[in-house]
Amino acid sequence: MKQVDERLGELGLALPQVFAPPPGVEFKFELVKVTGSVAYVSGHGPMNGSEILAVGKVDRDVSLDQARAAARVTVLSILASLEQELGSLNRVVAWHKLAGFVNASEGFDKTPAAINAASELILDLWGDAGRHARSAIGVAQLPFNWPVEIEAVVEVTT
Amino acid sequence: MKQVDERLGELGLALPQVFAPPPGVEFKFELVKVTGSVAYVSGHGPMNGSEILAVGKVDRDVSLDQARAAARVTVLSILASLEQELGSLNRVVAWHKLAGFVNASEGFDKTPAAINAASELILDLWGDAGRHARSAIGVAQLPFNWPVEIEAVVEVTT
Amino acid sequence: MKQVDERLGELGLALPQVFAPPPGVEFKFELVKVTGSVAYVSGHGPMNGSEILAVGKVDRDVSLDQARAAARVTVLSILASLEQELGSLNRVVAWHKLAGFVNASEGFDKTPAAINAASELILDLWGDAGRHARSAIGVAQLPFNWPVEIEAVVEVTT
Repeated sequence: MKQVDERLGELGLALPQVFAPPPGVEFKFELVKVTGSVAYVSGHGPMNGSEILAVGKVDRDVSLDQARAAARVTVLSILASLEQELGSLNRVVAWHKLAGFVNASEGFDKTPAAINAASELILDLWGDAGRHARSAIGVAQLPFNWPVEIEAVVEVTT
Repeated sequence: MKQVDERLGELGLALPQVFAPPPGVEFKFELVKVTGSVAYVSGHGPMNGSEILAVGKVDRDVSLDQARAAARVTVLSILASLEQELGSLNRVVAWHKLAGFVNASEGFDKTPAAINAASELILDLWGDAGRHARSAIGVAQLPFNWPVEIEAVVEVTT
Repeated sequence: MKQVDERLGELGLALPQVFAPPPGVEFKFELVKVTGSVAYVSGHGPMNGSEILAVGKVDRDVSLDQARAAARVTVLSILASLEQELGSLNRVVAWHKLAGFVNASEGFDKTPAAINAASELILDLWGDAGRHARSAIGVAQLPFNWPVEIEAVVEVTT
Protein backbone atom coordinates (compact mmCIF):
# COMPACT_ATOMS: atom_id res chain seq x y z
CA MET A 1 0.00 0.00 0.00
CA LYS A 2 1.18 3.49 -0.77
CA GLN A 3 1.80 5.86 2.07
CA VAL A 4 -1.37 7.75 2.98
CA ASP A 5 0.34 11.13 2.63
CA GLU A 6 1.24 10.28 -0.93
CA ARG A 7 -2.32 9.19 -1.72
CA LEU A 8 -3.69 12.44 -0.31
CA GLY A 9 -1.42 14.36 -2.69
CA GLU A 10 -2.48 12.23 -5.66
CA LEU A 11 -6.12 13.00 -4.87
CA GLY A 12 -5.29 16.71 -4.64
CA LEU A 13 -6.34 16.82 -1.00
CA ALA A 14 -4.75 18.81 1.81
CA LEU A 15 -5.57 18.49 5.49
CA PRO A 16 -7.37 21.36 7.20
CA GLN A 17 -6.14 22.98 10.42
CA VAL A 18 -6.73 20.81 13.48
CA PHE A 19 -10.26 21.08 14.94
CA ALA A 20 -10.27 23.80 17.60
CA PRO A 21 -13.10 25.35 19.62
CA PRO A 22 -14.83 28.37 18.07
CA PRO A 23 -14.98 31.52 20.23
CA GLY A 24 -16.98 31.04 23.42
CA VAL A 25 -16.73 27.23 23.30
CA GLU A 26 -14.55 24.99 25.46
CA PHE A 27 -13.51 21.44 24.66
CA LYS A 28 -13.37 19.17 27.68
CA PHE A 29 -12.52 16.11 25.62
CA GLU A 30 -9.60 14.81 23.56
CA LEU A 31 -9.87 14.81 19.77
CA VAL A 32 -8.31 11.33 19.77
CA LYS A 33 -7.79 8.92 22.66
CA VAL A 34 -5.24 6.19 22.07
CA THR A 35 -5.25 3.08 24.22
CA GLY A 36 -2.93 0.28 23.18
CA SER A 37 -3.53 -0.36 19.49
CA VAL A 38 -6.96 1.27 19.44
CA ALA A 39 -7.69 4.95 18.89
CA TYR A 40 -11.10 6.40 19.62
CA VAL A 41 -11.75 9.46 17.46
CA SER A 42 -14.18 12.01 18.92
CA GLY A 43 -17.11 13.27 16.89
CA HIS A 44 -15.84 15.64 14.20
CA GLY A 45 -17.63 17.88 11.72
CA PRO A 46 -16.76 20.01 8.70
CA MET A 47 -14.19 22.30 10.32
CA ASN A 48 -10.99 24.06 9.36
CA GLY A 49 -9.47 24.80 12.75
CA SER A 50 -12.21 26.71 14.54
CA GLU A 51 -13.95 27.73 11.31
CA ILE A 52 -17.31 26.06 10.69
CA LEU A 53 -17.46 25.13 6.99
CA ALA A 54 -21.04 23.92 6.66
CA VAL A 55 -24.28 24.23 8.64
CA GLY A 56 -27.89 23.23 8.34
CA LYS A 57 -30.35 20.39 8.08
CA VAL A 58 -29.82 18.01 5.18
CA ASP A 59 -32.51 18.14 2.47
CA ARG A 60 -33.83 21.46 3.82
CA ASP A 61 -30.91 23.87 4.31
CA VAL A 62 -28.26 21.86 2.49
CA SER A 63 -28.57 19.35 -0.34
CA LEU A 64 -27.49 15.73 -0.23
CA ASP A 65 -24.51 16.66 -2.42
CA GLN A 66 -23.53 19.40 0.01
CA ALA A 67 -23.87 16.94 2.88
CA ARG A 68 -21.62 14.52 1.03
CA ALA A 69 -19.03 17.27 0.57
CA ALA A 70 -19.29 18.05 4.28
CA ALA A 71 -18.77 14.38 5.11
CA ARG A 72 -15.56 14.35 3.04
CA VAL A 73 -14.29 17.49 4.78
CA THR A 74 -15.17 15.89 8.12
CA VAL A 75 -12.95 12.93 7.29
CA LEU A 76 -10.11 15.33 6.44
CA SER A 77 -10.61 17.01 9.84
CA ILE A 78 -10.43 13.58 11.49
CA LEU A 79 -7.21 12.87 9.60
CA ALA A 80 -5.72 16.18 10.81
CA SER A 81 -6.51 15.16 14.40
CA LEU A 82 -5.05 11.69 13.90
CA GLU A 83 -1.89 13.12 12.33
CA GLN A 84 -1.46 15.53 15.25
CA GLU A 85 -1.97 12.74 17.82
CA LEU A 86 0.07 10.04 16.09
CA GLY A 87 2.74 12.04 14.28
CA SER A 88 1.93 10.30 11.00
CA LEU A 89 -1.19 8.95 9.32
CA ASN A 90 0.83 5.93 8.29
CA ARG A 91 0.44 4.69 11.86
CA VAL A 92 -3.29 4.15 11.16
CA VAL A 93 -3.27 0.57 9.93
CA ALA A 94 -6.99 -0.23 9.92
CA TRP A 95 -10.38 1.39 10.25
CA HIS A 96 -12.80 -0.59 12.40
CA LYS A 97 -15.95 1.43 12.88
CA LEU A 98 -17.54 4.71 11.82
CA ALA A 99 -20.62 6.27 13.34
CA GLY A 100 -22.19 8.86 11.07
CA PHE A 101 -24.75 11.30 12.41
CA VAL A 102 -26.82 13.26 9.92
CA ASN A 103 -28.67 16.45 10.86
CA ALA A 104 -31.72 15.20 9.01
CA SER A 105 -34.73 17.24 8.02
CA GLU A 106 -38.19 15.74 8.53
CA GLY A 107 -38.60 12.75 6.23
CA PHE A 108 -35.00 12.57 4.99
CA ASP A 109 -33.92 8.95 5.33
CA LYS A 110 -31.04 8.78 2.82
CA THR A 111 -28.52 9.02 5.66
CA PRO A 112 -26.36 6.20 4.24
CA ALA A 113 -25.92 8.11 0.96
CA ALA A 114 -24.54 11.09 2.87
CA ILE A 115 -22.12 9.08 5.01
CA ASN A 116 -21.03 6.96 2.02
CA ALA A 117 -18.93 9.96 0.93
CA ALA A 118 -16.88 9.61 4.12
CA SER A 119 -16.49 5.86 3.70
CA GLU A 120 -15.46 6.26 0.06
CA LEU A 121 -12.68 8.68 0.92
CA ILE A 122 -11.33 6.35 3.61
CA LEU A 123 -11.37 3.45 1.14
CA ASP A 124 -9.66 5.62 -1.49
CA LEU A 125 -6.87 6.40 0.96
CA TRP A 126 -6.42 3.12 2.82
CA GLY A 127 -7.70 0.50 0.38
CA ASP A 128 -8.75 -2.76 2.04
CA ALA A 129 -7.31 -1.56 5.37
CA GLY A 130 -9.99 1.11 5.29
CA ARG A 131 -12.92 -1.34 5.25
CA HIS A 132 -15.10 -0.64 8.27
CA ALA A 133 -18.39 -1.35 9.99
CA ARG A 134 -20.71 1.64 10.15
CA SER A 135 -23.99 3.12 11.27
CA ALA A 136 -25.59 6.19 9.71
CA ILE A 137 -28.45 7.67 11.67
CA GLY A 138 -30.49 10.85 11.44
CA VAL A 139 -30.32 12.99 14.57
CA ALA A 140 -32.27 16.01 15.81
CA GLN A 141 -29.35 18.41 16.32
CA LEU A 142 -25.59 18.48 15.93
CA PRO A 143 -22.96 20.74 17.53
CA PHE A 144 -22.56 24.06 15.69
CA ASN A 145 -25.53 23.02 13.53
CA TRP A 146 -23.20 20.84 11.41
CA PRO A 147 -25.01 18.87 8.68
CA VAL A 148 -22.96 15.76 9.57
CA GLU A 149 -20.80 14.48 12.40
CA ILE A 150 -18.57 11.42 12.29
CA GLU A 151 -16.73 9.47 14.98
CA ALA A 152 -14.42 6.51 14.46
CA VAL A 153 -12.53 3.62 16.00
CA VAL A 154 -9.23 2.88 14.25
CA GLU A 155 -6.26 0.60 14.80
CA VAL A 156 -2.82 2.11 15.21
CA THR A 157 0.74 0.82 15.39
CA THR A 158 2.19 1.19 18.87
CA MET B 1 -24.73 -24.21 26.34
CA LYS B 2 -26.56 -25.60 23.36
CA GLN B 3 -25.38 -24.65 19.92
CA VAL B 4 -27.02 -21.48 18.71
CA ASP B 5 -28.28 -23.09 15.52
CA GLU B 6 -30.11 -25.68 17.57
CA ARG B 7 -31.68 -23.02 19.80
CA LEU B 8 -32.88 -21.10 16.73
CA GLY B 9 -34.64 -24.24 15.52
CA GLU B 10 -36.22 -24.85 18.93
CA LEU B 11 -37.60 -21.31 18.88
CA GLY B 12 -38.96 -21.88 15.36
CA LEU B 13 -36.76 -19.13 13.95
CA ALA B 14 -35.01 -19.07 10.60
CA LEU B 15 -32.46 -16.51 9.48
CA PRO B 16 -33.43 -14.06 6.72
CA GLN B 17 -31.34 -13.49 3.61
CA VAL B 18 -28.20 -11.47 4.29
CA PHE B 19 -28.77 -7.68 4.35
CA ALA B 20 -28.18 -6.28 0.86
CA PRO B 21 -28.69 -2.82 -0.62
CA PRO B 22 -32.14 -2.11 -2.08
CA PRO B 23 -32.19 -0.87 -5.71
CA GLY B 24 -30.44 2.47 -6.14
CA VAL B 25 -28.48 2.17 -2.88
CA GLU B 26 -24.79 1.37 -2.49
CA PHE B 27 -23.13 0.04 0.64
CA LYS B 28 -19.65 1.43 1.23
CA PHE B 29 -19.26 -0.37 4.55
CA GLU B 30 -18.88 -3.93 5.79
CA LEU B 31 -21.80 -5.62 7.52
CA VAL B 32 -19.35 -7.00 10.09
CA LYS B 33 -15.75 -6.00 10.76
CA VAL B 34 -13.70 -8.52 12.70
CA THR B 35 -10.50 -7.44 14.43
CA GLY B 36 -8.86 -10.00 16.68
CA SER B 37 -11.52 -11.36 19.00
CA VAL B 38 -13.86 -8.41 18.52
CA ALA B 39 -16.48 -8.04 15.80
CA TYR B 40 -18.15 -4.71 15.14
CA VAL B 41 -21.60 -5.20 13.61
CA SER B 42 -22.88 -2.35 11.44
CA GLY B 43 -26.28 -0.83 12.02
CA HIS B 44 -28.94 -3.27 10.82
CA GLY B 45 -32.69 -2.94 10.46
CA PRO B 46 -35.66 -5.21 9.73
CA MET B 47 -34.53 -6.59 6.37
CA ASN B 48 -34.76 -9.83 4.43
CA GLY B 49 -31.96 -9.43 1.92
CA SER B 50 -32.79 -6.14 0.20
CA GLU B 51 -36.46 -6.26 1.19
CA ILE B 52 -37.52 -3.69 3.79
CA LEU B 53 -39.84 -5.42 6.25
CA ALA B 54 -41.02 -2.51 8.38
CA VAL B 55 -41.10 1.28 8.11
CA GLY B 56 -42.36 4.26 10.04
CA LYS B 57 -42.15 6.21 13.26
CA VAL B 58 -42.88 4.27 16.42
CA ASP B 59 -46.11 5.21 18.21
CA ARG B 60 -47.36 7.09 15.13
CA ASP B 61 -46.98 4.84 12.06
CA VAL B 62 -46.17 1.60 13.87
CA SER B 63 -47.14 0.42 17.36
CA LEU B 64 -44.73 -0.48 20.14
CA ASP B 65 -45.56 -4.16 19.51
CA GLN B 66 -44.72 -3.75 15.83
CA ALA B 67 -41.49 -2.03 16.79
CA ARG B 68 -40.65 -4.93 19.08
CA ALA B 69 -41.29 -7.37 16.24
CA ALA B 70 -39.04 -5.27 14.01
CA ALA B 71 -36.32 -5.33 16.68
CA ARG B 72 -36.46 -9.13 16.74
CA VAL B 73 -36.22 -9.36 12.96
CA THR B 74 -33.31 -6.92 13.10
CA VAL B 75 -31.44 -9.28 15.42
CA LEU B 76 -32.10 -12.13 12.97
CA SER B 77 -30.64 -9.98 10.17
CA ILE B 78 -27.58 -9.32 12.36
CA LEU B 79 -27.24 -13.06 12.93
CA ALA B 80 -27.40 -13.71 9.17
CA SER B 81 -24.55 -11.23 8.67
CA LEU B 82 -22.50 -12.77 11.49
CA GLU B 83 -23.04 -16.28 10.12
CA GLN B 84 -21.91 -15.15 6.67
CA GLU B 85 -18.81 -13.45 8.06
CA LEU B 86 -17.83 -16.08 10.61
CA GLY B 87 -19.06 -19.30 8.97
CA SER B 88 -20.96 -20.27 12.12
CA LEU B 89 -22.85 -18.43 14.84
CA ASN B 90 -21.19 -20.72 17.36
CA ARG B 91 -18.08 -18.59 16.96
CA VAL B 92 -19.93 -15.73 18.70
CA VAL B 93 -19.01 -16.41 22.32
CA ALA B 94 -20.19 -13.20 23.99
CA TRP B 95 -22.24 -10.09 23.36
CA HIS B 96 -20.66 -6.94 24.75
CA LYS B 97 -22.69 -3.94 23.64
CA LEU B 98 -25.85 -3.09 21.71
CA ALA B 99 -26.84 0.34 20.51
CA GLY B 100 -30.53 0.57 19.70
CA PHE B 101 -31.88 3.48 17.69
CA VAL B 102 -35.63 4.02 17.65
CA ASN B 103 -37.36 6.13 14.97
CA ALA B 104 -39.40 7.83 17.67
CA SER B 105 -42.47 9.94 17.14
CA GLU B 106 -42.82 13.17 19.13
CA GLY B 107 -43.20 12.35 22.80
CA PHE B 108 -42.47 8.60 22.57
CA ASP B 109 -39.91 7.81 25.24
CA LYS B 110 -40.44 4.05 25.72
CA THR B 111 -37.37 3.33 23.60
CA PRO B 112 -36.04 0.72 26.08
CA ALA B 113 -39.27 -1.31 25.76
CA ALA B 114 -38.79 -1.51 21.99
CA ILE B 115 -35.13 -2.53 22.15
CA ASN B 116 -35.80 -5.00 24.99
CA ALA B 117 -37.24 -7.34 22.34
CA ALA B 118 -33.80 -7.50 20.70
CA SER B 119 -32.03 -8.09 24.01
CA GLU B 120 -34.50 -10.81 24.98
CA LEU B 121 -33.90 -12.75 21.77
CA ILE B 122 -30.13 -12.59 22.25
CA LEU B 123 -30.50 -13.81 25.83
CA ASP B 124 -32.83 -16.60 24.68
CA LEU B 125 -30.21 -17.77 22.19
CA TRP B 126 -26.94 -17.24 24.09
CA GLY B 127 -27.97 -17.40 27.74
CA ASP B 128 -25.53 -15.68 30.09
CA ALA B 129 -23.05 -15.24 27.23
CA GLY B 130 -25.62 -12.92 25.66
CA ARG B 131 -25.65 -10.45 28.56
CA HIS B 132 -24.71 -7.05 27.22
CA ALA B 133 -24.48 -3.34 27.94
CA ARG B 134 -26.89 -1.21 25.92
CA SER B 135 -28.23 2.19 25.03
CA ALA B 136 -31.64 2.81 23.49
CA ILE B 137 -32.18 6.28 22.11
CA GLY B 138 -34.83 7.95 20.02
CA VAL B 139 -33.54 9.41 16.77
CA ALA B 140 -35.00 11.73 14.15
CA GLN B 141 -34.60 9.48 11.08
CA LEU B 142 -33.30 6.05 10.19
CA PRO B 143 -32.14 4.61 6.87
CA PHE B 144 -35.02 3.35 4.71
CA ASN B 145 -37.38 4.81 7.34
CA TRP B 146 -36.83 1.72 9.52
CA PRO B 147 -38.64 1.89 12.88
CA VAL B 148 -35.52 0.56 14.64
CA GLU B 149 -31.82 0.11 13.91
CA ILE B 150 -29.38 -1.92 16.01
CA GLU B 151 -25.59 -2.16 16.01
CA ALA B 152 -23.46 -4.44 18.18
CA VAL B 153 -20.03 -5.32 19.49
CA VAL B 154 -19.53 -9.05 20.02
CA GLU B 155 -16.67 -11.36 20.95
CA VAL B 156 -15.67 -14.13 18.56
CA THR B 157 -13.34 -17.09 18.65
CA THR B 158 -10.29 -16.60 16.45
CA MET C 1 -3.34 10.23 42.15
CA LYS C 2 -5.64 10.27 45.12
CA GLN C 3 -8.18 7.53 45.49
CA VAL C 4 -11.42 8.37 43.70
CA ASP C 5 -13.50 7.83 46.83
CA GLU C 6 -11.43 10.43 48.64
CA ARG C 7 -11.82 12.92 45.79
CA LEU C 8 -15.59 12.43 45.80
CA GLY C 9 -15.64 13.32 49.47
CA GLU C 10 -13.47 16.40 48.93
CA LEU C 11 -15.91 17.58 46.27
CA GLY C 12 -18.82 17.00 48.66
CA LEU C 13 -20.34 14.40 46.35
CA ALA C 14 -22.12 11.19 47.29
CA LEU C 15 -23.16 8.45 44.92
CA PRO C 16 -26.89 7.92 44.28
CA GLN C 17 -28.58 4.53 44.60
CA VAL C 18 -27.77 2.18 41.72
CA PHE C 19 -29.91 2.72 38.59
CA ALA C 20 -32.97 0.47 38.78
CA PRO C 21 -36.06 0.20 36.57
CA PRO C 22 -39.00 2.45 37.51
CA PRO C 23 -42.35 0.69 38.05
CA GLY C 24 -43.63 -1.03 34.90
CA VAL C 25 -40.21 -1.08 33.23
CA GLU C 26 -37.92 -4.07 32.76
CA PHE C 27 -34.18 -3.95 32.09
CA LYS C 28 -32.96 -6.62 29.72
CA PHE C 29 -29.41 -5.31 29.71
CA GLU C 30 -26.50 -5.05 32.13
CA LEU C 31 -25.60 -1.67 33.59
CA VAL C 32 -21.93 -2.49 33.01
CA LYS C 33 -20.39 -5.26 30.90
CA VAL C 34 -16.77 -6.09 31.69
CA THR C 35 -14.66 -7.95 29.15
CA GLY C 36 -10.98 -8.26 29.94
CA SER C 37 -9.70 -4.80 30.79
CA VAL C 38 -12.57 -2.99 29.08
CA ALA C 39 -15.91 -2.10 30.64
CA TYR C 40 -18.83 -0.98 28.51
CA VAL C 41 -21.18 1.22 30.51
CA SER C 42 -24.82 1.26 29.35
CA GLY C 43 -26.64 4.51 28.69
CA HIS C 44 -27.42 6.18 32.02
CA GLY C 45 -29.47 9.25 32.89
CA PRO C 46 -30.13 11.41 35.94
CA MET C 47 -31.42 8.73 38.31
CA ASN C 48 -31.31 7.93 42.00
CA GLY C 49 -32.19 4.24 42.02
CA SER C 50 -35.51 4.12 40.16
CA GLU C 51 -36.28 7.80 40.79
CA ILE C 52 -36.13 10.04 37.73
CA LEU C 53 -34.40 13.28 38.76
CA ALA C 54 -34.81 15.40 35.64
CA VAL C 55 -36.98 15.34 32.52
CA GLY C 56 -37.62 17.45 29.44
CA LYS C 57 -36.15 18.91 26.29
CA VAL C 58 -33.09 21.12 26.76
CA ASP C 59 -33.65 24.81 26.02
CA ARG C 60 -37.43 24.35 26.09
CA ASP C 61 -38.40 22.46 29.27
CA VAL C 62 -35.04 22.65 31.05
CA SER C 63 -32.26 25.22 30.79
CA LEU C 64 -28.69 24.55 29.70
CA ASP C 65 -27.63 24.91 33.36
CA GLN C 66 -30.23 22.34 34.41
CA ALA C 67 -29.02 20.03 31.65
CA ARG C 68 -25.45 20.45 32.91
CA ALA C 69 -26.59 19.55 36.43
CA ALA C 70 -28.37 16.50 35.01
CA ALA C 71 -25.19 15.49 33.17
CA ARG C 72 -23.23 15.62 36.45
CA VAL C 73 -25.85 13.50 38.23
CA THR C 74 -25.74 11.07 35.31
CA VAL C 75 -22.00 10.62 35.83
CA LEU C 76 -22.64 9.92 39.52
CA SER C 77 -25.20 7.27 38.51
CA ILE C 78 -22.60 5.73 36.18
CA LEU C 79 -20.11 5.69 39.06
CA ALA C 80 -22.63 3.94 41.31
CA SER C 81 -23.06 1.24 38.64
CA LEU C 82 -19.28 0.89 38.18
CA GLU C 83 -18.75 0.63 41.95
CA GLN C 84 -21.41 -2.09 42.20
CA GLU C 85 -19.92 -4.04 39.29
CA LEU C 86 -16.23 -3.63 40.19
CA GLY C 87 -16.34 -3.43 43.99
CA SER C 88 -14.32 -0.20 43.94
CA LEU C 89 -14.05 2.82 41.67
CA ASN C 90 -10.29 2.64 42.10
CA ARG C 91 -10.34 -0.24 39.63
CA VAL C 92 -11.30 2.27 36.89
CA VAL C 93 -7.86 3.30 35.64
CA ALA C 94 -8.77 5.20 32.46
CA TRP C 95 -11.72 6.67 30.63
CA HIS C 96 -11.61 6.04 26.88
CA LYS C 97 -14.85 7.26 25.34
CA LEU C 98 -18.07 9.01 26.28
CA ALA C 99 -21.15 9.29 24.11
CA GLY C 100 -23.46 12.07 25.25
CA PHE C 101 -27.03 12.24 23.99
CA VAL C 102 -28.95 15.46 24.53
CA ASN C 103 -32.76 15.62 24.34
CA ALA C 104 -32.51 18.76 22.25
CA SER C 105 -35.30 21.17 21.47
CA GLU C 106 -35.63 22.50 17.92
CA GLY C 107 -32.63 24.66 17.11
CA PHE C 108 -30.57 23.90 20.24
CA ASP C 109 -27.07 23.01 19.07
CA LYS C 110 -25.02 23.68 22.23
CA THR C 111 -24.91 19.97 22.97
CA PRO C 112 -21.15 20.05 23.78
CA ALA C 113 -21.74 22.66 26.52
CA ALA C 114 -24.24 20.34 28.21
CA ILE C 115 -22.03 17.25 28.06
CA ASN C 116 -18.94 19.24 29.11
CA ALA C 117 -20.32 19.12 32.66
CA ALA C 118 -19.99 15.33 32.60
CA SER C 119 -16.47 15.46 31.19
CA GLU C 120 -15.41 18.07 33.76
CA LEU C 121 -16.54 15.92 36.67
CA ILE C 122 -14.66 12.91 35.33
CA LEU C 123 -11.52 15.03 34.90
CA ASP C 124 -11.95 16.43 38.43
CA LEU C 125 -12.08 12.91 39.82
CA TRP C 126 -9.53 11.05 37.69
CA GLY C 127 -7.18 13.79 36.49
CA ASP C 128 -5.25 12.87 33.33
CA ALA C 129 -6.55 9.29 33.56
CA GLY C 130 -10.00 10.74 32.93
CA ARG C 131 -9.13 12.25 29.55
CA HIS C 132 -11.46 10.77 26.94
CA ALA C 133 -12.74 10.97 23.39
CA ARG C 134 -16.36 12.05 23.08
CA SER C 135 -19.35 12.77 20.90
CA ALA C 136 -22.27 14.96 21.96
CA ILE C 137 -25.30 14.76 19.72
CA GLY C 138 -28.86 16.02 19.90
CA VAL C 139 -31.46 13.28 19.73
CA ALA C 140 -35.22 13.22 19.27
CA GLN C 141 -36.18 11.31 22.43
CA LEU C 142 -34.52 9.72 25.43
CA PRO C 143 -35.76 7.02 27.82
CA PHE C 144 -37.97 8.41 30.61
CA ASN C 145 -37.78 11.78 28.83
CA TRP C 146 -34.34 12.39 30.38
CA PRO C 147 -32.69 15.65 29.24
CA VAL C 148 -29.35 13.81 28.80
CA GLU C 149 -28.08 10.26 28.52
CA ILE C 150 -24.44 9.18 28.70
CA GLU C 151 -22.68 5.91 27.91
CA ALA C 152 -18.99 5.16 28.36
CA VAL C 153 -16.09 2.85 27.63
CA VAL C 154 -13.57 2.66 30.48
CA GLU C 155 -10.46 0.65 31.30
CA VAL C 156 -10.40 -1.45 34.45
CA THR C 157 -7.80 -3.44 36.34
CA THR C 158 -8.38 -7.16 36.08
